[in-house]
Amino acid sequence: MATLQSECWILTGYPEGMPDDSTFRLERRPVPAPGDGEVGLETLYISVDPYMRGRMSPVKSYVAPLSPGDVIAGAAVARVAESRHPDFAAGDLVLAPLGWRTAGVLPGGLLQKVALSANRASLALGALGMPGLTAYFGLLDVGQPKPGETVLVSGAAGAVGSLVGQIARLMGCRAVGVAGSDDKVRWLTEELGFHAALNYKAHEDLRAALAPLCPDGVDVYFDNVGGAVSDAALGLINLRARLVICGQIAQYNAKNPPRGPRPFATLLVRRARAEGFIIFDFKERFPEAQQRLSTWVDDGRLRVRETVIEGFANVPKAFLGLFAGENTGKMIVRL
Amino acid sequence: MATLQSECWILTGYPEGMPDDSTFRLERRPVPAPGDGEVGLETLYISVDPYMRGRMSPVKSYVAPLSPGDVIAGAAVARVAESRHPDFAAGDLVLAPLGWRTAGVLPGGLLQKVALSANRASLALGALGMPGLTAYFGLLDVGQPKPGETVLVSGAAGAVGSLVGQIARLMGCRAVGVAGSDDKVRWLTEELGFHAALNYKAHEDLRAALAPLCPDGVDVYFDNVGGAVSDAALGLINLRARLVICGQIAQYNAKNPPRGPRPFATLLVRRARAEGFIIFDFKERFPEAQQRLSTWVDDGRLRVRETVIEGFANVPKAFLGLFAGENTGKMIVRL
Repeated sequence: MATLQSECWILTGYPEGMPDDSTFRLERRPVPAPGDGEVGLETLYISVDPYMRGRMSPVKSYVAPLSPGDVIAGAAVARVAESRHPDFAAGDLVLAPLGWRTAGVLPGGLLQKVALSANRASLALGALGMPGLTAYFGLLDVGQPKPGETVLVSGAAGAVGSLVGQIARLMGCRAVGVAGSDDKVRWLTEELGFHAALNYKAHEDLRAALAPLCPDGVDVYFDNVGGAVSDAALGLINLRARLVICGQIAQYNAKNPPRGPRPFATLLVRRARAEGFIIFDFKERFPEAQQRLSTWVDDGRLRVRETVIEGFANVPKAFLGLFAGENTGKMIVRL
Repeated sequence: MATLQSECWILTGYPEGMPDDSTFRLERRPVPAPGDGEVGLETLYISVDPYMRGRMSPVKSYVAPLSPGDVIAGAAVARVAESRHPDFAAGDLVLAPLGWRTAGVLPGGLLQKVALSANRASLALGALGMPGLTAYFGLLDVGQPKPGETVLVSGAAGAVGSLVGQIARLMGCRAVGVAGSDDKVRWLTEELGFHAALNYKAHEDLRAALAPLCPDGVDVYFDNVGGAVSDAALGLINLRARLVICGQIAQYNAKNPPRGPRPFATLLVRRARAEGFIIFDFKERFPEAQQRLSTWVDDGRLRVRETVIEGFANVPKAFLGLFAGENTGKMIVRL
């Protein structure tokens, strides 16, 4: 019997600064037959996410670093090809930490069933998965928005940001987004119901451009980006504002520690709070959040868009596109 | 009858950068006789505090700006000379927002009785007053230290910092201080019971110098200073660390917004929180805190030192000395 092979994207070494095509190498690796308790999987959708950049570095972050030669790690939606675990049967769709590979074998304990049809299953990587949970807990638990407050979100057209603004609106807040193109701004305001949005690339003085969009100041700043957008946001925060530090994509590829205006004096004067979080701290409450997100998506209160890149060969391209703002909503690779 | 006169220190204009002698002008101003409900006061002790720098600027901060020509505002301990308010009698000692003047008249509602002997009454401006309350609520409520955790405090030999480290020790924490001279370091470790302390002026690589003093990392960083000391502290924080932003004296006199390494990525990776506060948010709980602080001072668990400058003529000198680190403990002017 021929051994099953998987195509895999391998980390060639730690990139300095922005990764590029040379950061990744395509390899075929054998897939063993599943042992007891294991499940053989065929990948359908691969998630590419900004946080993965943190793994391509020897520095310990909140994600464990990869080593050169490793398959890039991450979440995927897969179809069960063969199961030797009682909870799974051939044909089941599952959320699986397969990383960037076309097939693999994993212990059943690492898999979660996806109760969606195959053509909607990628939602388990977006609005109903990690990005959705990140928006939900980051905004509601860390940001604690109150009705009538203004929620400003950077990276607003991304997988997380596009949900943050919509959830803010559902909570009775004024939702304001910062994104990187006029098309994205139109999508946010005309389709997603953001009250206002700004293309940061179209303005020199970001603070002056943002101020009229936030006439009552900013109570919650949900930060996916960092850098100059955050500097502008900080200039608009109200007393007791909450800054939810979710991502800092503007500096993930910096070669040297980025410098900027020191923010602590503003936190002091505004008696404000800046707080980093990761979603795994809320693990026990995932079912509650998934239930609500799923209801909102089903009844149309949350609108979701995906940027779908076709073909396993294009996984690195999709990943690199995140840093050029090529996605609107969640970036997904469909195999 | 001769009108009573008060000597007053007047703001001449808004200083750019570091204030100096030309920022202040001595004037005599008449003191009216107290009207109904008012109290005539003779100043005994004047408080000089770093936050006062914020008032010498047209920019709205958490304290209202002074205007050129105003008497410098602030707290003092005074003796009641004449009272037309039922709660006060001649000879009473009171805490009074007199500012930098030798005598004045204030409504009784702005005064608080000081239940200390005249030679200890300056404690109402320090350990038993605003700096003590700032240390108490900032550390315990904003910082939320747990026994066994490491509390690092900058400006550790100052009015607030010297109390923060001692309260941390009382709470079962490891107390580590950063101060600006070897004498201060010895005072912190040999007299106040800090577990370790560092003279930041004696080290190029502050983070490397601090790391061995915080072998288990930093759980609470109580920041009075900002700048390079905070950059070093940030490099040592543990998961879920709390940064209490109490003061940023290193940058109060900056002419341009100070720049430095951006801290939000560290907050993200460590899931840490940075929070500014001011003490007036805890007003309702002042009595509880003053009771505990007073007990600790009386039974010697909290040790207090003051740097006492003699004479009203030297108030500006005392104030300017704060920015040169000339005080150990609370800086007080005695008239």
